[in-house]
Amino acid sequence: MDSDSSSITHAAILASGEELVTGRRVDTNSHFIQRRLASIGISVVQCRQVGDGIEELVRCLEELRSVAPLVITTGGLGPTEDDRMRDAVARTAGVPLEEDPAARAELERFFAERGRVASPSNLRQAQLPKGAARLPNPRGTAPGFRVGIDRTSVISLPGVPFEMRGMIDEQVLPWLRPEGGEAIREISLQVVGLPESVLGERIHRWMADPSGPEVAVTAHEAWITVTLWNRDGGPELLKETEKAIRAVLEPHCLSDGYSTLEEEVVNRLIQRGETVSTAESCTGGLAAARLTEVPGASAVFPGAVVTYSNAEKVRNLAVTESDLEQHGAVSETIARAMAEGVRQRCQTTWGIGITGIAGPEGGTPDKPVGTVHVAWSGPAGTIHRRLRLSGPRGVIRLRTAVTAWEQLRQALSVEDRGG
Amino acid sequence: MDSDSSSITHAAILASGEELVTGRRVDTNSHFIQRRLASIGISVVQCRQVGDGIEELVRCLEELRSVAPLVITTGGLGPTEDDRMRDAVARTAGVPLEEDPAARAELERFFAERGRVASPSNLRQAQLPKGAARLPNPRGTAPGFRVGIDRTSVISLPGVPFEMRGMIDEQVLPWLRPEGGEAIREISLQVVGLPESVLGERIHRWMADPSGPEVAVTAHEAWITVTLWNRDGGPELLKETEKAIRAVLEPHCLSDGYSTLEEEVVNRLIQRGETVSTAESCTGGLAAARLTEVPGASAVFPGAVVTYSNAEKVRNLAVTESDLEQHGAVSETIARAMAEGVRQRCQTTWGIGITGIAGPEGGTPDKPVGTVHVAWSGPAGTIHRRLRLSGPRGVIRLRTAVTAWEQLRQALSVEDRGG
Repeated sequence: MDSDSSSITHAAILASGEELVTGRRVDTNSHFIQRRLASIGISVVQCRQVGDGIEELVRCLEELRSVAPLVITTGGLGPTEDDRMRDAVARTAGVPLEEDPAARAELERFFAERGRVASPSNLRQAQLPKGAARLPNPRGTAPGFRVGIDRTSVISLPGVPFEMRGMIDEQVLPWLRPEGGEAIREISLQVVGLPESVLGERIHRWMADPSGPEVAVTAHEAWITVTLWNRDGGPELLKETEKAIRAVLEPHCLSDGYSTLEEEVVNRLIQRGETVSTAESCTGGLAAARLTEVPGASAVFPGAVVTYSNAEKVRNLAVTESDLEQHGAVSETIARAMAEGVRQRCQTTWGIGITGIAGPEGGTPDKPVGTVHVAWSGPAGTIHRRLRLSGPRGVIRLRTAVTAWEQLRQALSVEDRGG
Repeated sequence: MDSDSSSITHAAILASGEELVTGRRVDTNSHFIQRRLASIGISVVQCRQVGDGIEELVRCLEELRSVAPLVITTGGLGPTEDDRMRDAVARTAGVPLEEDPAARAELERFFAERGRVASPSNLRQAQLPKGAARLPNPRGTAPGFRVGIDRTSVISLPGVPFEMRGMIDEQVLPWLRPEGGEAIREISLQVVGLPESVLGERIHRWMADPSGPEVAVTAHEAWITVTLWNRDGGPELLKETEKAIRAVLEPHCLSDGYSTLEEEVVNRLIQRGETVSTAESCTGGLAAARLTEVPGASAVFPGAVVTYSNAEKVRNLAVTESDLEQHGAVSETIARAMAEGVRQRCQTTWGIGITGIAGPEGGTPDKPVGTVHVAWSGPAGTIHRRLRLSGPRGVIRLRTAVTAWEQLRQALSVEDRGG
């Protein structure tokens, strides 16, 4: 074991393969390696995908050597002509390729066990940069290797995902952290209903503070994730910062211990012994589908209706023909009637009614695409909100469903505090 | 329009965001851009994911300038402190940032339309490198821009996928290939209900044929995509190969012209003047949500019920207490009763009933997690299938919903052919 592997704190990843730059395959290997390294406290600072040209591989290896003390490569270790990672690493290290006797014996055994004979092109896979440590690959024919180039360690692994994953877990992580690694020091907060710019202003001082944890903001289609992590400080500073950030994001932030909005809604309802039902028009079942993704949702969600047509609204809910005629299906009156109707019909504590125009057709100057009415009916009465959303149909539907659950989540947690 | 954009034949991509190197998000934006550029004959030679440190962004921009005459960046254009792509590109170009009056007007209009006022941090988004051409972003607040640095064009786009995608299609591709480019020579076939190994054997000869189009297989959680593309050959060979591959994949392959399963179901129902309704238990509204994602679904889908509890099944559908007692809620009898009940209740041509155990709790030795009964009721009677699915809760639910629509799709297309 090299003496300084445990001092490595950051790494770069180089993935080789024409399919990774021509749109034929997404590089999920790098994502896997990022997570595994994060779990032992090593940050990935750069990932690259390139084809299989040797000049480009050598240039990338040279550049990445100056970026991080550890470079992990995937791909380019196969038996064919276009597998050039062995040559590229050898050239970068300034050493020749040499046959590794143990690698050759392993290859020959692999083929013998399958009643085949290793061909000359297979045997190319036993050639390693001189001085490299072989990393056995029990799941395939291409061994990996590890070689030091000045102060950088280069680890080359095959590109086949299940081979690479096994080698990361069984060989690379134990080499990097023989004592088993530190605990993960990362906290994610999900935030709903706050524009990114407002959020950014509220947490600006922590994002700009070089002495505190790192704070990153990622906008998704219907919510924002704030992630805090801490490479060097202790867990106390991280916890303190989390608490301070939660305080300025109230009430838009999921409560501690929940990883999704719907999970918090289901669990709060269980704690309170309450239930909910939904009546959906423009979201067409999406709100129900999101809630029932949570294991155990059946305890709080006896059922729901999707009333796309006006006839179904009248037949199933407390909606009248005259209200539809007077206000139109997309209106506060109808959303309220749907919420109250489904609550009564399913005998639940809460009822949610959703009606709107998700597009791309159906908008009018008065009610453009993105106009959505949502109503929440509960023990203390019914409240209503009109949303004006933008984006394609799928985004409007998603934002509506998320808003429906977020408002209920807030109602459930405020009442909890008050009681 | 720059005079030499049509001579660009290769490109590099730089994606910025801490979440892309810490294992929190896979960079699917680069994959999208690779495919779109390939469709107009531009090869991507290198992709990079980095965090949001300005020094590293500048270094990457410098290095990528020497790799390709076009560099496309994503991310880092938001309103917060950690959005540094504008500064990095300006520094690389050796120019200051300047407020772009049109960008500012667009931002102010965006906020005014939503009844809000742009904050100072929002207005940072109107700052562009001096001399850059603004690329409007009709779907969000961050405009993109294009700037020439010596002989390289740098195009910076936001990281939010649907904003970025629209700008690629509406602004970047038309700039690169004003004449419209070559025809897109790529065909994707969605395949449902065929194991990947069986599919691989059936199309092996086309995958191994170096004289024909490229053929790639991508397995998703509930379907497989087969992609064919052809950079140099004519469209005839591609069309011929597609036809031959379709023939060996029948009946598991979407019909020509449809890009999703649910789109084909909705459109076939519209053509036939028919309708469908669903009664869902374990999928909790997911089948309805997937169908109603298709624009125009309201014409064929008046409504649906989610009957999670037994009481709701009895009250809403043709389900009896004695059947529930005798067969259990997860049974052929109940699935059939749900399908027939919802068909009658909603007065639709077709009715689909779904009941099963999605897990992780609720399995028994007799009915393990993944046991799902689906029934399809139509003019000629009711058919039923028992599924035995594996995977986590979300995957079991997704596979069930997809199977429900795939079976109906096949019924609708067989009858079409027969009639």
